[in-house]
Amino acid sequence: MTEAREAGYLPEMLFTTATRDDHPLIIALEEDVLAAGGDVISVSAEIMSKLSGKDNAQAIVGIYRDHPVQLAQIDRTAAPIWLVAQAMRDPGNLGTMLRTGDAVGAGGLILIDDCTDPFGVEAVRASMGAVFTQAIVQCRWEEFLPWLRSGEAQLVGTSLQTEIDYQNCQYTAPCFIMTGNEAQGLPESYTAQCDVLVKMPMYGKADSLNAAIATAIMAYEVRGQMRRE
Amino acid sequence: MTEAREAGYLPEMLFTTATRDDHPLIIALEEDVLAAGGDVISVSAEIMSKLSGKDNAQAIVGIYRDHPVQLAQIDRTAAPIWLVAQAMRDPGNLGTMLRTGDAVGAGGLILIDDCTDPFGVEAVRASMGAVFTQAIVQCRWEEFLPWLRSGEAQLVGTSLQTEIDYQNCQYTAPCFIMTGNEAQGLPESYTAQCDVLVKMPMYGKADSLNAAIATAIMAYEVRGQMRRE
Repeated sequence: MTEAREAGYLPEMLFTTATRDDHPLIIALEEDVLAAGGDVISVSAEIMSKLSGKDNAQAIVGIYRDHPVQLAQIDRTAAPIWLVAQAMRDPGNLGTMLRTGDAVGAGGLILIDDCTDPFGVEAVRASMGAVFTQAIVQCRWEEFLPWLRSGEAQLVGTSLQTEIDYQNCQYTAPCFIMTGNEAQGLPESYTAQCDVLVKMPMYGKADSLNAAIATAIMAYEVRGQMRRE
Repeated sequence: MTEAREAGYLPEMLFTTATRDDHPLIIALEEDVLAAGGDVISVSAEIMSKLSGKDNAQAIVGIYRDHPVQLAQIDRTAAPIWLVAQAMRDPGNLGTMLRTGDAVGAGGLILIDDCTDPFGVEAVRASMGAVFTQAIVQCRWEEFLPWLRSGEAQLVGTSLQTEIDYQNCQYTAPCFIMTGNEAQGLPESYTAQCDVLVKMPMYGKADSLNAAIATAIMAYEVRGQMRRE
């Protein structure tokens, strides 16, 4: 919740217990929530355990309003890298992509087509706070593509149907790294619109990497190349 | 199960349904299981749904014996990279590490201390078959370190307590990439034994990457460097 508060997000409801840690950050958070018109509610250890899903009476639970942003609100020059997920179904993958995006200095995660809810419990947990530091956009491909082409952008897709090695490409900011659905990958009509289509070498029996893993390897490769220049 | 069969592993029990796909690979698998003294059992769609956890009557379910190997059985020169996980608790992370290991051409995954079960359902699912292609060793640090030092090896650890950038290092085969527990990272007494201790640049608010993600970025960096030389 510290990341959230620093990023300007306060819970609308904050649940605590009488035995909660009286850390200065928690006290400051409670004061901020009340000052912003939110509620601070003290519950029993038993209810906290149900709310948090953990046997830890030190826990506090905050209920936040979800905060998607619109494509038009995005300043693409604010970051060298943006992550794009297409029809991503696994909330753990989505949350992990947010966490990786924060680490690699991406501006945000653009969710195309029917992705799982980035504000669901599992995605938020996997994001480790990055759900508050990364811009999150939910849109359709038909909105995304015209917006992308209305300014500077390099759209990079990963695919098994290419011979171009991911370490043999020139990446330019703002670089949009697009990863497709866990089972199907990117639709062909989408990869056809990519400025660069790359593959990662696969040395084993499997023909693909986990979607969040592939995104992370790509993002660190792009960032590594940019900082060497 | 195709990966398993190719790697020489057959299920001891194979459950199918009367309506199962009669793909030649499935028929060949059934024949192999029977020839090896195993059982092929036809069940109702309802039982298959319970067994597989999926509403898919085309599914088949195999019960395999787990197949850990001993350190002494490992030929470290058989692969340029080996992954080492210490006290890894999340089965999804462990399975994903196996999948990544297969992709990057690692020889196997060495589990140190109390890791989650690599042969549990969630880890096996996340491994996407790599549980059969990667050697899996379970041992204690006190066994691992003497074995490691009994031959050629570079032990690489990731840590926040170092200034050495992961792209500014010389990696040599066989390279053992060690990743610590999701919450605690590697114990200091372990990092003290590493030949190289590196960190990945973190540009955001968070101070760490998901353990499976960090391992994958490291493994592809090491492999990328090796193939350039």
